[in-house]
Amino acid sequence: MPIRGLLQSETHRVTGRLTFGMQQSHDVVVVRYGHRPGRDDRMTTHVGLTARALGADRVVVPDNAGQSVETVRDITERFGGPFEIEQSDSLGALIRNFEGTVVHLTMYGLPVQDVERDVRSDLDEGPLMIVVGGEKVPFEIYEHADYNVGVTNQPHSEVAGLAVFLDRLFEGRELDTEWVDAENQVIPQSTGKKVIPGETDTDQHSDA
Amino acid sequence: MPIRGLLQSETHRVTGRLTFGMQQSHDVVVVRYGHRPGRDDRMTTHVGLTARALGADRVVVPDNAGQSVETVRDITERFGGPFEIEQSDSLGALIRNFEGTVVHLTMYGLPVQDVERDVRSDLDEGPLMIVVGGEKVPFEIYEHADYNVGVTNQPHSEVAGLAVFLDRLFEGRELDTEWVDAENQVIPQSTGKKVIPGETDTDQHSDA
Repeated sequence: MPIRGLLQSETHRVTGRLTFGMQQSHDVVVVRYGHRPGRDDRMTTHVGLTARALGADRVVVPDNAGQSVETVRDITERFGGPFEIEQSDSLGALIRNFEGTVVHLTMYGLPVQDVERDVRSDLDEGPLMIVVGGEKVPFEIYEHADYNVGVTNQPHSEVAGLAVFLDRLFEGRELDTEWVDAENQVIPQSTGKKVIPGETDTDQHSDA
Repeated sequence: MPIRGLLQSETHRVTGRLTFGMQQSHDVVVVRYGHRPGRDDRMTTHVGLTARALGADRVVVPDNAGQSVETVRDITERFGGPFEIEQSDSLGALIRNFEGTVVHLTMYGLPVQDVERDVRSDLDEGPLMIVVGGEKVPFEIYEHADYNVGVTNQPHSEVAGLAVFLDRLFEGRELDTEWVDAENQVIPQSTGKKVIPGETDTDQHSDA
């Protein structure tokens, strides 16, 4: 199982999960910068789950966010992938050394509606990192980012900002994601809840 | 100050805050159903702040969510309105008796991309209530809702779901909201932070 997960991860890092027209998209990684254990557990978990549900390929969280890692992995096992969550003790270096475009979501940044087209073009050319702050984002991140982007210039929620940004980046295509290796699959209902066992896994798929 | 706030509130309840073409839109109210004090404080606060930032006119939270009420009122005083937050000890009755269209956001519901157009038409005709669950939403809410809507059928975040739903409902117009009576105004920057004192208030405005 771990080997399989690794192989999947290697594959989708090259290709990205969502396609843009005829072209394969590049990798989109979300970085949760800053985490206070206890106080931030649910917010960091929601950042991770939102990244997964709305089309990012992986999320990196701080070393001290182990509880969020467990929850996101559990959801991915139950509802499918591919999606990776990783921990890092040096997020600053990860951001500085990223070979691709860096977007930092902040209420002080440029309006999302003005920059989303440029970011989308950049994603056609190479991978994208989206940095989502906790409370204290150092000035170096603002300086290093290729785009500081505000989903409104109002204080609200890093989860809400990430969600709107991803939906606009992918222009809604992320809503049609097909999940692989899910134990459970939710069937949309006008009223009530319907959950069925997930699709057969990819190995069996190739025999069908 | 309280009287003024009340008058403003009465006005925007009739007209709605965002306009649709030449037509005034109707009121959009978000209801946070369910709240566990302590554990849910930040999520409920983020629901309230997201509702405010992304174009809703008001939010109603449970009686036991007093801390979130304080935070949202504080942000509204500092960054402007109009926006109202209210508490209710009978959210079920509030939803049942609402005279308008009720949308319940749930991962079990119909895809947002399939129903958003219909909901938008309904909002042209009358007010809209958006119910955002905590963990336990009783079946009556599913039954009473005019639309059960999923922003994906994946588990992620009620804050993320609300954000994407509002951005799609208003088709991005909420990003251009002009805030009234703000103490602080953030000026979008490509790098760094710029905050200036808010616009003069509406009384002085009318002299200008």
